[in-house]
Amino acid sequence: MEPRITLISLGVADLERSIRFYQDGLGLPRRDGPEGIAFFETGPTLLSLYPREALAEDATVSSEGSGFRGFALAHNVASKEAVVAMLDEAVAAGARLVKPAQDVFWGGYSGYFADPDEFLWEVAWNPHMPLA
Amino acid sequence: MEPRITLISLGVADLERSIRFYQDGLGLPRRDGPEGIAFFETGPTLLSLYPREALAEDATVSSEGSGFRGFALAHNVASKEAVVAMLDEAVAAGARLVKPAQDVFWGGYSGYFADPDEFLWEVAWNPHMPLA
Repeated sequence: MEPRITLISLGVADLERSIRFYQDGLGLPRRDGPEGIAFFETGPTLLSLYPREALAEDATVSSEGSGFRGFALAHNVASKEAVVAMLDEAVAAGARLVKPAQDVFWGGYSGYFADPDEFLWEVAWNPHMPLA
Repeated sequence: MEPRITLISLGVADLERSIRFYQDGLGLPRRDGPEGIAFFETGPTLLSLYPREALAEDATVSSEGSGFRGFALAHNVASKEAVVAMLDEAVAAGARLVKPAQDVFWGGYSGYFADPDEFLWEVAWNPHMPLA
């Protein structure tokens, strides 16, 4: 496998709601694409929104599932203050604050929000990891 | 939010098994980091493996969950033949073939595999999207 992830596809309950959240709320730049799917420019690895049922159907798996999805996305920022500001921005856009910003055991500062489908995002300041 | 995803963190049941799968099986380059977590160089957006219970604890959510996780990662390649080869490589590394490579409605060619924790990866040739 070449060291490349092309897409992170989130299966969402309401595509228009999720587009509003990520495009209008968080301000992510949208890439032109076909109807029924939304791609956002987040570096070489794009964020993709697709209806949950359609994503399961495409993978030929059942769409049944509940609870913890077992994964999180992380958005690192340059300072503790920027962690707080980003969490505030997400909440203003309609996110749920899951974990308020705080010092964490590995020497950084982070918090979590959940998007409208309860997908988890960590917002972190990590003094050990340069920003990409 | 700046258009950047720093990490995709997968919460795994057996960290050593998952490291073997991604590092030895798929050949992803590992980045140096602390013990108890594994980072792989997959462009500016890193793939991170972390124990599932620890990830849930970090996010202050319950680790209970089952079924479809509602998301998939995609790895695009340059040809139909490369889709088949990549799926074969994943299966040889211990993945489960979920959807054999096939022509798909949007004009491409793709299949899916599941990693040892049943995280879904689409392997796709997409004539409409240049490789990053």
